[in-house]
Amino acid sequence: MEFVASQISENIQPSATLKLNALVQEMRSQGQDVIGLSAGEPDFDTPTHIKDAAIKALNEGKTHYTPVGGIGELKQAICKTLLRDKNLCYQNKNILVSMGAKQALYEALHVILDPGDEVLLPMPCWLSYQEMIGMCGALVVPIPSKAENAFMPDIKDFYDRCTNKTKLIIINSPNNPTGAVWNRELLNGIAEFAKEKGLYIISDEIYEKLVYDGFNHVSIAQISEDAQKRSIVISGFSKAYAMTGWRLGYIAADEKIISAINAYQSHAAGCTNSVAQYAAVAALEGTQQPLGEMLKIFNKRRDIVVNLLEKMPYISFVRPHGAFYVLIDISKCIGKSYKGTPIHSDEDFAYLLLTHGRVSVVPGKPFGAPNNIRISYATKEDTITEAMQRLKSFLETLD
Amino acid sequence: MEFVASQISENIQPSATLKLNALVQEMRSQGQDVIGLSAGEPDFDTPTHIKDAAIKALNEGKTHYTPVGGIGELKQAICKTLLRDKNLCYQNKNILVSMGAKQALYEALHVILDPGDEVLLPMPCWLSYQEMIGMCGALVVPIPSKAENAFMPDIKDFYDRCTNKTKLIIINSPNNPTGAVWNRELLNGIAEFAKEKGLYIISDEIYEKLVYDGFNHVSIAQISEDAQKRSIVISGFSKAYAMTGWRLGYIAADEKIISAINAYQSHAAGCTNSVAQYAAVAALEGTQQPLGEMLKIFNKRRDIVVNLLEKMPYISFVRPHGAFYVLIDISKCIGKSYKGTPIHSDEDFAYLLLTHGRVSVVPGKPFGAPNNIRISYATKEDTITEAMQRLKSFLETLD
Repeated sequence: MEFVASQISENIQPSATLKLNALVQEMRSQGQDVIGLSAGEPDFDTPTHIKDAAIKALNEGKTHYTPVGGIGELKQAICKTLLRDKNLCYQNKNILVSMGAKQALYEALHVILDPGDEVLLPMPCWLSYQEMIGMCGALVVPIPSKAENAFMPDIKDFYDRCTNKTKLIIINSPNNPTGAVWNRELLNGIAEFAKEKGLYIISDEIYEKLVYDGFNHVSIAQISEDAQKRSIVISGFSKAYAMTGWRLGYIAADEKIISAINAYQSHAAGCTNSVAQYAAVAALEGTQQPLGEMLKIFNKRRDIVVNLLEKMPYISFVRPHGAFYVLIDISKCIGKSYKGTPIHSDEDFAYLLLTHGRVSVVPGKPFGAPNNIRISYATKEDTITEAMQRLKSFLETLD
Repeated sequence: MEFVASQISENIQPSATLKLNALVQEMRSQGQDVIGLSAGEPDFDTPTHIKDAAIKALNEGKTHYTPVGGIGELKQAICKTLLRDKNLCYQNKNILVSMGAKQALYEALHVILDPGDEVLLPMPCWLSYQEMIGMCGALVVPIPSKAENAFMPDIKDFYDRCTNKTKLIIINSPNNPTGAVWNRELLNGIAEFAKEKGLYIISDEIYEKLVYDGFNHVSIAQISEDAQKRSIVISGFSKAYAMTGWRLGYIAADEKIISAINAYQSHAAGCTNSVAQYAAVAALEGTQQPLGEMLKIFNKRRDIVVNLLEKMPYISFVRPHGAFYVLIDISKCIGKSYKGTPIHSDEDFAYLLLTHGRVSVVPGKPFGAPNNIRISYATKEDTITEAMQRLKSFLETLD
């Protein structure tokens, strides 16, 4: 019996990084010291007071089902945080807790999009957006964002590409993979455009806490009452609190949207891990000192990476102000060769850099950034410095 | 901006129990002592050695992303368990770890079903199957299973209702809501039918460990090599190890199916809670004594409930041999009145029993069992006895 997948399953792009990750593992098992710069997670341990809250919940037997959309205490803590940090007013009925921001996005898209609907998607962007939109049978309409404009899209392009099928805009600031932090002017423009055309806005704010250089994260929901009403704000605990493995995110949105997502989640997955929910309350309500320390370290690493990259040939990049990635333009390497092997694409570059330079990076193509690579600086200083040295040698060997 | 949900979201049935649960909470907040017999989870705490393994994982900093489909140790432990308990041979590549059996089912259906496909679904059944099938745009073709045949369907009905659109059969033994445990003869028939028609079988075995009276749970994958090849076996940790809040389930299936589900899960949700995965290894590899004790207690409670139900007027039921539910036929109550209020349906019955008898049960209609109610005996002996007394008084008051 030959397995024939559903059309939607068939259309899912096999992960570009999967093949590279398998190769990394193979090389390491052979004793080679490969440096990984492809991870999308902080290398820090979850802060102790958060883990202690989890242990307390375990000891108190909080191991049963919770309400599908999350425990009241956590919803309350999320509301308080949004009010304190962003002056955004939400109530518990506006909040839903999900298994990571990823599931939140997946579910929000599914309750909004019908097959054939169009989504305006600024690119480069996180690779799962396109896949999720495809899983709904909806269509991606790319909006370019260019390095020369600090990866902020031109509002004119939104108007130009809007049709009567357009239902939704997805924005992601601070951005993965560019590290761009969008300014208030751009957000104003998008809010106005969305109002004029009657569109929803999904705002993926998972990197909201990771901003540097005095930049400030502004949520599009802060722009106006109308913008808040039409925005589905998504965030989580993975990046700010080094809680990637806990799988916990949330949505803040209009009550009717939350109610639809709650019904969807009730049949698709149920509630999230109960212990993680109690830990997340501690993350929001406890000391924010570990976050401050992590931020300082990320900032320092970012400076190290940027300073070293600036001295390398053939590449260019935009200094990132948020998240923990640098998107590196390698266009000038295309057409060159490494010891006789030609480089035709970012995939070729990543493959050769891994196998010969022993540094793993992510090719930009799946992010809508062909001829780019993404590196993550969520790794120790010494390691980053060594990785940059290897990248430099690799680049200097090209001809 | 009025929210217009997607067609698929719009079609999701609002949970029938939600309204009743809200009422329970309201009554309790007013100080009324309502007994809940509607929960679908063991009332036991997760065994200590499993919680200890979670605490160990937390202390060891195992709080990062795991591979999407689960850690190798857990896959290995699942393979070992399937081999030991059922003589089923699987390798790690045949296993995927998901957020509860619910998500496993949702994802398996999505990688198999295209819109318009038909699914043969024996009824009564767990209410989420129908919703999940609808979320794929596929169609439910009900197969009746009747009380007089111990809720085992007639194999002839499968043949009669199979069309060229049929792609899949879902089976669930031990069954929610009937507690029926299907025998090998029926499974043989289904395996043969599936082979003849070239169908997949999703076998939801979440209650596999909860069987009484010397009954044995047989997986359809044990029937033949062909049956194993076409079966997607789904189980988890919630019911056997009192781990409902941990959200951990798994799928065992053909490598290609697992690979498709892995790709789907990678974009829809990502990996499951890392700490829960380490705890689950301890659940499978540690002592099974708590499970044995829980089983004894469930068995005793089942006997108490059954003995008390037998003495009540107007109702009938089939003695359950698995899970922790009794499906009670209340047809003879339809048309009667409780203190002047007529009972037209199982919803009416459940509502009146709650508001006047202070016992909460689940109406059978969403399970495909109209004129029935489902009670759970996953609650303490004294409480059950008191609840049965209240039900008896309620029934004796009908006229």
